[in-house]
Amino acid sequence: MAEVKHLVVAKFKEGVVVEEILKGMTELVSTMDMVKSFEWGTDMIGEEMLRQGFTHVFIMTFNNGEDLASYFNHPSHNDFIGTFQAVLENALVFDFPAVVIKAPS
Amino acid sequence: MAEVKHLVVAKFKEGVVVEEILKGMTELVSTMDMVKSFEWGTDMIGEEMLRQGFTHVFIMTFNNGEDLASYFNHPSHNDFIGTFQAVLENALVFDFPAVVIKAPS
Repeated sequence: MAEVKHLVVAKFKEGVVVEEILKGMTELVSTMDMVKSFEWGTDMIGEEMLRQGFTHVFIMTFNNGEDLASYFNHPSHNDFIGTFQAVLENALVFDFPAVVIKAPS
Repeated sequence: MAEVKHLVVAKFKEGVVVEEILKGMTELVSTMDMVKSFEWGTDMIGEEMLRQGFTHVFIMTFNNGEDLASYFNHPSHNDFIGTFQAVLENALVFDFPAVVIKAPS
């Protein structure tokens, strides 16, 4: 069964301390066994037009759709998501089974 | 050194056969050793508002920024990118060193 990825591309409101948000995310995923991996980043190349105003990318990986659903339905996620949404100016969210064309060798 | 990810969130023009595009991408990455992994997907949950019109996600992983640069500068990439851009209605591109908060155990 394909791994499922939860992708969030975000732009935060002005004045938001992203480090604080990341701290909250780190605490959240550390307690949630169904989150298989979690990575984030900010664009390094700086083609601003191609970023369309977004500044941060967050990618979580789950073993399957059931694990993603149990993450979404977890009370800790519900607590966090309110905080997260309050600091967002804009966000793009994608949840998809990852089709692997080339796997790390 | 952090892995570098090349993320493309895309919406294709009407009538575009995405399978053809994927075939081209698959051929492209199969010949390019500097592409460490390549995955793609389409949204499974269907919160259309959160997708903002985008339909497909493509994620390539490279060992470092030099490998990403050599991919971008490769003639095969240049050939492909013209085809790719011609079928896109909209795309969001992010290139970022992946900060790993939680690694697969």
